[in-house]
Amino acid sequence: MINIDVIKFDDNGLIPAIIQQEQTGMVLMLAYMNRESLRKTIETGVTWFFSRSRQSLWQKGETSGHVQKVQQIYYDCDGDTLLIKVEQVGVACHEGTLSCFRRTIDQQKVEGETAVTIPSVYGQS
Amino acid sequence: MINIDVIKFDDNGLIPAIIQQEQTGMVLMLAYMNRESLRKTIETGVTWFFSRSRQSLWQKGETSGHVQKVQQIYYDCDGDTLLIKVEQVGVACHEGTLSCFRRTIDQQKVEGETAVTIPSVYGQS
Repeated sequence: MINIDVIKFDDNGLIPAIIQQEQTGMVLMLAYMNRESLRKTIETGVTWFFSRSRQSLWQKGETSGHVQKVQQIYYDCDGDTLLIKVEQVGVACHEGTLSCFRRTIDQQKVEGETAVTIPSVYGQS
Repeated sequence: MINIDVIKFDDNGLIPAIIQQEQTGMVLMLAYMNRESLRKTIETGVTWFFSRSRQSLWQKGETSGHVQKVQQIYYDCDGDTLLIKVEQVGVACHEGTLSCFRRTIDQQKVEGETAVTIPSVYGQS
């Protein structure tokens, strides 16, 4: 039984969703959902977000194939943030790395993994 | 060398900060920072946030002692979300559990750890 009325959307109808790789615990990205994208995420089992810049729904990996298979959706004590544990197919970041969080504020350099080259997927964006 | 000019604050001067326990990878909470709270976080080595409801800075654990010792601050590819890895002293959630994310949207029940009773800290709020 799913009741998304426990979720509090902000004045713009949005809620931030933290995406975490279930297997490793790595935080992959943060994006925003509106009520419709949350419903589609629940219905389809893959993540859908709402683009604030384009003001439209988008499915993560729709063109790249790098979809996020939802394992579990958590919400916090205030009901105003989602934490979605996923199985990430391919990579989460449009820069070609598994996580979008690779730069540190103190050194401003890319840490950890090396970006993979996937020009056929992201090279034209 | 730290340059927080790479960080993009939104129209309200805020940026969401995901707080993750470094040791376990557990996502503990999400809160918002403005430029001043980020500066204080960097300067003091513990997390400071900006309360949207109270419109004021607050230090996590200032009264409870449940501070978050900053291990590393990451920012994402868009520069509009922070991921802060911390050592959590005590618990992160005002409900007395380590993480604020314990309820799942499909069952709406508390999962995992049992809330600890810490009336001296949170019982009067």
